[in-house]
Amino acid sequence: MASLPSCIFCKIIKGEIPSLKLFESDKTYAFLDIGPLSSGHSLIIPKHHGAKLHDMPADQLTEILPVAARIAQAVGCEDYNILQNNGRIAHQVVDHVHFHMIPKPNEAEGLGVGWPVREGEEDKTELARLCERIRSRM
Amino acid sequence: MASLPSCIFCKIIKGEIPSLKLFESDKTYAFLDIGPLSSGHSLIIPKHHGAKLHDMPADQLTEILPVAARIAQAVGCEDYNILQNNGRIAHQVVDHVHFHMIPKPNEAEGLGVGWPVREGEEDKTELARLCERIRSRM
Repeated sequence: MASLPSCIFCKIIKGEIPSLKLFESDKTYAFLDIGPLSSGHSLIIPKHHGAKLHDMPADQLTEILPVAARIAQAVGCEDYNILQNNGRIAHQVVDHVHFHMIPKPNEAEGLGVGWPVREGEEDKTELARLCERIRSRM
Repeated sequence: MASLPSCIFCKIIKGEIPSLKLFESDKTYAFLDIGPLSSGHSLIIPKHHGAKLHDMPADQLTEILPVAARIAQAVGCEDYNILQNNGRIAHQVVDHVHFHMIPKPNEAEGLGVGWPVREGEEDKTELARLCERIRSRM
């Protein structure tokens, strides 16, 4: 399992930095965010160190969403966002893959979602070409 | 596998509504969003119909993130957000669990992330109590 000595989340997994642990298994660790956007804001992370989602082996990602769902149920929130950011411009602050489970109890608390829809209609032909291009690379 | 006749994503999975398909397996379906926030904006969904993440059987969620990672790599984006919304207040529009993979090529395009951090320091004792409460329900 990859680990990076200087990574704050790898240190939390090893217990070198304390955390408010919610769940732990062979490959997954979850804890409360200490700077929550709402009560119950949690982080679910793979133990395997990878900076971005596409750096992760597939088998290290299979538990993440079931664990996030279990935490949401245990928190007792009906409305919430699951968010994972890749890159500084996409709001990633710690370079170890992590998923936020952020309860959304009201407009003021929780994640703010900005949805800058493009003006005008999308070009269907261009989208179909893009689809073929992406498929050919998968 | 649960399916809801009136659900637009269940119809897409069955082929009753066309989509720009990127990937399909026994339990997962992925396609281009036709109202993209940026080029390559994709949706990855479980075929099993559930409105919210905590409605889903765990074994229907295991492929979602590996597929999202493969699509991000095929799109060729380095920076992107993975987002899954639960509830109208949390920006969910279609009541079938879906994960957005939204490339973030620049500040203007892609997801806008609002992070309304609470004022003042979090009460550590209160957080520790909350942690125990959540753990006891898991």
